[in-house]
Amino acid sequence: MKAIVTVTLKHGVLDPQGKAIGHALHTLGFTGVGEVRVGKLIELELPDQDPAQAKATAEDMARKLLANTVIESFKVEIA
Amino acid sequence: MKAIVTVTLKHGVLDPQGKAIGHALHTLGFTGVGEVRVGKLIELELPDQDPAQAKATAEDMARKLLANTVIESFKVEIA
Repeated sequence: MKAIVTVTLKHGVLDPQGKAIGHALHTLGFTGVGEVRVGKLIELELPDQDPAQAKATAEDMARKLLANTVIESFKVEIA
Repeated sequence: MKAIVTVTLKHGVLDPQGKAIGHALHTLGFTGVGEVRVGKLIELELPDQDPAQAKATAEDMARKLLANTVIESFKVEIA
């Protein structure tokens, strides 16, 4: 079963990579672009057969390894 | 209008970061995890009011800056 974990910075946490992308877009002629924020996307192939169980496993992985929950939040989707 | 661009490595392109995450999960006791692949997620606040126009703009941005289309593919969602 495939799980997709998206990890994004919490609101209020500075995102210099996003700022850099915003500046680069402006330089390329894309004017009027507002806030840009960058996150991570992790696709996992899990052995669980039950979607609820797979979601619980992926959330456990996110809390323990994939996300730094002090500054990042995460979301799990089962595909 | 908010656009979310997800950039992932194309199939067949090696993903050492994903491999490292897979090993770390195994070390943490999550056995049986198959392939792990890591991508990027870019949230943009666009000035376009029309969803179709916003999608076209975001795709143009992805082709010109956000994705390396030789090894990465991208997907645009308008939220």
